[in-house]
Amino acid sequence: MDDQRDTTDRFLPRFDAAGLVTAIVTDADSHVLLMVAHMNEEAIAKTRETGQAHFWSRSRTSLWRKGETSGNGLTLVEMRVDCDQDALLLRVKPAGPACHTGRRSCFYRRVESDGRLSFLADDAQG
Amino acid sequence: MDDQRDTTDRFLPRFDAAGLVTAIVTDADSHVLLMVAHMNEEAIAKTRETGQAHFWSRSRTSLWRKGETSGNGLTLVEMRVDCDQDALLLRVKPAGPACHTGRRSCFYRRVESDGRLSFLADDAQG
Repeated sequence: MDDQRDTTDRFLPRFDAAGLVTAIVTDADSHVLLMVAHMNEEAIAKTRETGQAHFWSRSRTSLWRKGETSGNGLTLVEMRVDCDQDALLLRVKPAGPACHTGRRSCFYRRVESDGRLSFLADDAQG
Repeated sequence: MDDQRDTTDRFLPRFDAAGLVTAIVTDADSHVLLMVAHMNEEAIAKTRETGQAHFWSRSRTSLWRKGETSGNGLTLVEMRVDCDQDALLLRVKPAGPACHTGRRSCFYRRVESDGRLSFLADDAQG
């Protein structure tokens, strides 16, 4: 653990070898976990400049604004950083479902003890 | 996006090149984001078998049980998986502060518009 990063008041993201940090996105009002994505330096800058969440797509190797095709953008309420500065929390107001499947949250399945996944009702995804 | 992984009822974690998935840990009661860590196949198995959160430490390259030195273990209430199965949500009951700094959550600093970090009161870390 890098003590400097966990005590400083300077924002010093600890990017991985691919230049990315993990971004955890929650609903600012309900605290519901909506999605997990990745951000590079440009995505962080764009998000802070515009107030709309931008991410780095590892599969498409390009910057994207969440909602640019679906319309379901995420308006930033607050950005936080964790102790070692390799993960960000984006507290947002979502314009619609955050998941590409049309669900409110990407975390719509529970891992059961027998290894099967059970699908949760949309209002139980908190 | 792998359609099969987002519609199946089979638990098929999509491990990265290092054999890891991202684990998001929240307080099962309050939904507060506590910490982010990584899990390999063994960490997932141990967590499911014992009901106590285990992770893979990338810096120490070893499996660890959260709380094995601090006493602040995390009792698993529910495990969820996201649409493309490369991230897990662990809803837990924490025995104490989740952060190594002694704070309830690792996300105790807000990124301000001027790039400075402000420290949040412990009860505002939700």
